[in-house]
Amino acid sequence: MGEHVERLKQHLYRYHDLQAANSVLSWDQEVYMPPKGIEARGEQMATLAAMAHEIFTSAETGRLLEAAEAEVAGMDYDSDEASLVRVLRRDYDKMVKIPTELIAEQARITAQAFVAWREARQQANYQLFQPHLQKVVDWNYKVVDILGYKEHPYDTLLDFYEPGMTTAEVARLFGELKAGLVPLLQDIVARGKPVDDSFFSQEYPEDRQWDVSMAALREIGYDFSRGRQDKTAHPFTTTFSVNDVRVTNRFMRNRPQSSFFSAVHEGGHALYEQGVNPAYDRTALMGGATLGVHESQSRLWENIVGRSRNFWRYFLPVFRAFFPEQMEGVTLERFYRAINKVEPSFIRVEADEVTYNLHIFVRFELEQALITGDLHVADVPDAWNAKYQAYLGITPPDDAQGCLQDVHWSHGTLGYFPTYALGNLMAAQLYAQAQKEIPDLEESFARGEFSLLLGWLREKVHWHGTKFTAAELMQRITGGSIEAQPLLDFLRAKYTEIYEL
Amino acid sequence: MGEHVERLKQHLYRYHDLQAANSVLSWDQEVYMPPKGIEARGEQMATLAAMAHEIFTSAETGRLLEAAEAEVAGMDYDSDEASLVRVLRRDYDKMVKIPTELIAEQARITAQAFVAWREARQQANYQLFQPHLQKVVDWNYKVVDILGYKEHPYDTLLDFYEPGMTTAEVARLFGELKAGLVPLLQDIVARGKPVDDSFFSQEYPEDRQWDVSMAALREIGYDFSRGRQDKTAHPFTTTFSVNDVRVTNRFMRNRPQSSFFSAVHEGGHALYEQGVNPAYDRTALMGGATLGVHESQSRLWENIVGRSRNFWRYFLPVFRAFFPEQMEGVTLERFYRAINKVEPSFIRVEADEVTYNLHIFVRFELEQALITGDLHVADVPDAWNAKYQAYLGITPPDDAQGCLQDVHWSHGTLGYFPTYALGNLMAAQLYAQAQKEIPDLEESFARGEFSLLLGWLREKVHWHGTKFTAAELMQRITGGSIEAQPLLDFLRAKYTEIYEL
Repeated sequence: MGEHVERLKQHLYRYHDLQAANSVLSWDQEVYMPPKGIEARGEQMATLAAMAHEIFTSAETGRLLEAAEAEVAGMDYDSDEASLVRVLRRDYDKMVKIPTELIAEQARITAQAFVAWREARQQANYQLFQPHLQKVVDWNYKVVDILGYKEHPYDTLLDFYEPGMTTAEVARLFGELKAGLVPLLQDIVARGKPVDDSFFSQEYPEDRQWDVSMAALREIGYDFSRGRQDKTAHPFTTTFSVNDVRVTNRFMRNRPQSSFFSAVHEGGHALYEQGVNPAYDRTALMGGATLGVHESQSRLWENIVGRSRNFWRYFLPVFRAFFPEQMEGVTLERFYRAINKVEPSFIRVEADEVTYNLHIFVRFELEQALITGDLHVADVPDAWNAKYQAYLGITPPDDAQGCLQDVHWSHGTLGYFPTYALGNLMAAQLYAQAQKEIPDLEESFARGEFSLLLGWLREKVHWHGTKFTAAELMQRITGGSIEAQPLLDFLRAKYTEIYEL
Repeated sequence: MGEHVERLKQHLYRYHDLQAANSVLSWDQEVYMPPKGIEARGEQMATLAAMAHEIFTSAETGRLLEAAEAEVAGMDYDSDEASLVRVLRRDYDKMVKIPTELIAEQARITAQAFVAWREARQQANYQLFQPHLQKVVDWNYKVVDILGYKEHPYDTLLDFYEPGMTTAEVARLFGELKAGLVPLLQDIVARGKPVDDSFFSQEYPEDRQWDVSMAALREIGYDFSRGRQDKTAHPFTTTFSVNDVRVTNRFMRNRPQSSFFSAVHEGGHALYEQGVNPAYDRTALMGGATLGVHESQSRLWENIVGRSRNFWRYFLPVFRAFFPEQMEGVTLERFYRAINKVEPSFIRVEADEVTYNLHIFVRFELEQALITGDLHVADVPDAWNAKYQAYLGITPPDDAQGCLQDVHWSHGTLGYFPTYALGNLMAAQLYAQAQKEIPDLEESFARGEFSLLLGWLREKVHWHGTKFTAAELMQRITGGSIEAQPLLDFLRAKYTEIYEL
């Protein structure tokens, strides 16, 4: 590595260490922190975030970056050196405009907002969360003000999570997706073919669900010597280094499928983080390319693999061994249909593959309205419920099952949700490509062999860390851009078979 | 608060936040971190420690400290302002001499040493730990070299944990203690009165032990809304803020008394940290006065309260309710004698009150020899075993039960152990004073009323944080200095009754 790139890299070690430490503090806050620890924790996280921001946006970083840019001029676009410098320039030019005080303020706001959200959700009381959401929205206003925007203020927020993507482009993709999903859902509903998933509505002891989720994580290749699972209100994956990538899960006694698919979903995220080139640790190349690409990995494992017939050819005996009484008389076909039951429902993370993206459209539209000022924070519950009625034909019975269900706003993040649907699109595209390149891919799942797929993803996606944008990555792997059609094709084929459309 | 003191305080918030964050990282490392996370964790902790050190020893701190000193001149010695400035000056003058690189090096050394120690202890293989202990000792050499010393190099290390105390003074106190303990132990052994604690050698399920330890913590007044208990290889207490003070414990199926007394011991530490004036949070006044005073609190609760007959008049029915079969036919008297059985043994934390301090003498003498160079790291096991033979008349069967039993050296801390025996001395002195000031103190335990004692300790000890040295605190509370006689009197009286000497 060139001398100036190396110097830049070393200068930023502290930045990455502070960020990693803050991730530990945040993980602890959600997993183990006693309730009254929150105020001090907010200050601690604000301090670490501020100090990290100061290092990253320092004049010294600017100088080292310029010297490094001169050094990598003419190097391969794909080289580690050129990529590191390119990614740092992109992030630096954005972050240098944001004052440190605003970063510290976000840490403080969100530490409190998270606790308020958890309480509000538990009590189904939006009032408890509203003032915190107001602070979050106001904070995002400030960021948009500072960074500016070309077409839409939401572009500025989206760019944090999906660099290079615009609101207009997302709207176009979502439009296509909607045009295909709505008739598919109508066909399924019109067909009226009942799916019996009543066997899930029994008592599934939590410790057994835990064991099954651990087994599932092991099966798909999650490395427990470099990670662990814990329990939280909202499942998530977090990374402290390529050798410490943790997942969380939640367990409901009457919904064993929920913890199972959460495990595989978070496992998909974690496989990504555990699969990045270890040489990228403590640098800006560590981690997932974009949140959309990240979600493509979690959704690929959760849905395309985890909800496939072949996966359960292999795994149903394991599941049955843990729940012999509950699974009495449940055949593979009945089970397969049950985990793929299509039905409009309130909770996004529990939604089936067909309706899931409708949940995202709701959030995408509400967030745009919040950031343009067309929607007031006080009116979020009503707007939420109206959208659910419009898209899914149902109205949440309370805000816990409505606008309080997601943790994201309490983390201060507006602009994040669209990446979930983008991830679904990319998952289908990646899987179609993998099928072309790997003979007998689907059959390998029936043998409990997930290394063919994992190896392919490691090489094509994971290894590269943040080197490429989503568009670049998809171009390299599939030869095309992000499109809605592959997902629509996948869903149409799968559900035509299940519902005999 | 004066303007300059306030400015100094605010300047150091970042220092305290970084230290608190590092405590979270350290706690996570011992409690939950996956094994391969260690390397990155070492770097993260080194970065935070180095940045904290840079802030604390910066020229800016020096300037603000001078201005603050001018401001507090003439103020009451006891005032918060004068005390904060005094404590900071003491720590600043010491820390400013230590280069940041040495601080970062310690963090790296100890992150690795801890993992090696855990492995070495598990395998009873000193070779695995030896190179790490060598690094720790070398690091301590460097510190002594930099800071210098007047009488004994060990003074410099001791001063980190017990400011103002010298090796000579400790040796004098330990000499007096030894002169009283050895004949007491001889009398007990000569008496030959058997104690039947065989009922402990049964199966006590871990989850029940957990429940009992939680109940004990609650009873003595530990606030779970500001703390939690987790499991570790070696029990400890750690503080992230006055509102987040955590304890850990370990559970052995055939030693329910071990987890019980660990809970009360760590609970005693935690009551101290939870009882400091909340206004001291994020300042140098937060925390315990010295480690000796800290240990006085843990040992007071563990031994003087927890191993008293009156405590078990109240708590035995609870213990019995959790273990009805194991406690079949065990009377209060039999139980009381069993938990106070005096017998030379290998493991310090499991030792009875009479032999405990002999374990400390071993470590005190070995550490002095290590730092003067009279003892080589390679010879520690032999030296350890020889001292155990000399002081306790027994030789550890392996190093896991010998020189690998304690976590402390893996934390880089030499000079810490004497504070344990100093804590025992102060505990007896404080308790004797409390008995004078609180009518019917002992009887209150039999009623499950621990708030009389806790309230007294809160007022006399906890509330003041680090404001006073151990000597100052004892002078204020008891009117005298730290002495060995009160502990000897306490032990002589207690064991004369138990063993009918």
